[in-house]
Amino acid sequence: MILLDGKKIASQIKEEIAGRVGEIVKSEGKTPHLAAVIVGSDGASETYVAHKVKACKEVGFNSSLFRLEEQVTEDLLLGKIDEINNNNDIDGVIVQLPLPSHISEDKVIERISVRKDVDGFHPVNVGRMLIGQPAYISATPYGILQLLERYNIETSGKHCVIIGRSNIVGKPVAALMARKGYPGDCTVTLCHSRTRNLEDICRQADILVAALGSAGFVNADMVKEGAVVIDVGITRVQSNETKSGWKLLGDVGFQEVAPKCSYITPVPGGVGPMTIVSLLANTLRASLGEIYGRQRTGQ
Amino acid sequence: MILLDGKKIASQIKEEIAGRVGEIVKSEGKTPHLAAVIVGSDGASETYVAHKVKACKEVGFNSSLFRLEEQVTEDLLLGKIDEINNNNDIDGVIVQLPLPSHISEDKVIERISVRKDVDGFHPVNVGRMLIGQPAYISATPYGILQLLERYNIETSGKHCVIIGRSNIVGKPVAALMARKGYPGDCTVTLCHSRTRNLEDICRQADILVAALGSAGFVNADMVKEGAVVIDVGITRVQSNETKSGWKLLGDVGFQEVAPKCSYITPVPGGVGPMTIVSLLANTLRASLGEIYGRQRTGQ
Repeated sequence: MILLDGKKIASQIKEEIAGRVGEIVKSEGKTPHLAAVIVGSDGASETYVAHKVKACKEVGFNSSLFRLEEQVTEDLLLGKIDEINNNNDIDGVIVQLPLPSHISEDKVIERISVRKDVDGFHPVNVGRMLIGQPAYISATPYGILQLLERYNIETSGKHCVIIGRSNIVGKPVAALMARKGYPGDCTVTLCHSRTRNLEDICRQADILVAALGSAGFVNADMVKEGAVVIDVGITRVQSNETKSGWKLLGDVGFQEVAPKCSYITPVPGGVGPMTIVSLLANTLRASLGEIYGRQRTGQ
Repeated sequence: MILLDGKKIASQIKEEIAGRVGEIVKSEGKTPHLAAVIVGSDGASETYVAHKVKACKEVGFNSSLFRLEEQVTEDLLLGKIDEINNNNDIDGVIVQLPLPSHISEDKVIERISVRKDVDGFHPVNVGRMLIGQPAYISATPYGILQLLERYNIETSGKHCVIIGRSNIVGKPVAALMARKGYPGDCTVTLCHSRTRNLEDICRQADILVAALGSAGFVNADMVKEGAVVIDVGITRVQSNETKSGWKLLGDVGFQEVAPKCSYITPVPGGVGPMTIVSLLANTLRASLGEIYGRQRTGQ
């Protein structure tokens, strides 16, 4: 059994990105720049955004944080997005979700310029991903792909079973693992709350992706000998074992499942650390105009 | 075994659409209007477009056919699209594919206003479909959904296996059958040329969708007793049995497979006739501004 060490790979990728910033400053005449928009002061959102800003600093990116109050109108937020879209110095923008209920998340996401949509949530990027065109791929699916790639895990012709059909993990991972090329070319089965015989289906998986958000859901009986197991779940539970009084659990019962696996991601330290570096990688690509070409003024 | 009679259902839907045109003229002050753009004079493309124009006439829609010569520049074609986008009298536009090799199909499709993209090929519509937002769904997948719905075929919790991962059939059908709601909520397996143990996987299918384009590929051994079989393939082969000297074959060996099925589509007369009515249904929705609201001048 080999541990898919997301923490190690993420730090390697960060170093690689940091190493490229110097060249980019020379070739582009500017430093890659990520803007984050946060509305209100939700604790979890604050933490996530702080991590992203910190990661930018670590690799030498510029970052800007735009704070809007909880009561901000949708129009004002959309105006802020327009302003960022039109600012040639900013390469990528993320809007921390969730937004307050009086604001349409869909509308806000669709307002972001596709060329700055480094979260990969804009329907144009989602659609292009599905039909195999170049696109920004959202952080968690992109992180999973990178992890498979860095460990040279064969995917072609493998049966990849995904548990969970969320828009940000299950559906895009299904699309990506089924498409032509590497990592991809898998037979893909997408399972969810309505699935019958889930155990039987999981046992067929060469690659099993658990993304349902239920701690310890996947047990040893559901996993084929030699399978690759990717655990996307993160559930915070109380614990006497840690100083903080809580610990993080994945969707996979690691202790019993790991011995059967060829590869498995731990939680924490597996998929988690890969997500932020994927956002950095997308911002790097945006600064190079890799997907949609250069920004012209006001575009 | 019940035949999924696409010809019959398609003609019912056409009647329903025709019945609504009168009200729409009253409520919208105009007749639904589909524009088709054809470049060059490919025989098959001419036939397809002629069928679409004829179908418009049958239900009382207006239609416009824009012919551009094979040598037309990409810029000129894009300019024509802009003109159609800006014409408030036109509700939907399709560009008949394939286009000559000097023109980027992706660029042309992305130029079509999402609100007039009744073929559902624009990445915004594809992306919105994947994440479960309202969108124009392309004709063949939409036709398949309608057929399942009209026959009240249960889909929730069923295992839907799809053979073929094309952008216009396999991938969108997979996305649609997996999403919440009816028809949908299936466990979905997407298979393709790299799939191993295809027979085993197909035998698990409660609903089997064959969309690989290989005549008679699916045999009786690959089908579970009581399965619903949807045959999307159309291959034209020579035949002594017909006057014309050719006949159409599906991807399913109908004679041997049909007796095992609860429901099966014939070829021809199954999925085929459903595609054009789906285009009409999308045009109707566009004329009512159902997905993206009303067009304002120049939008």
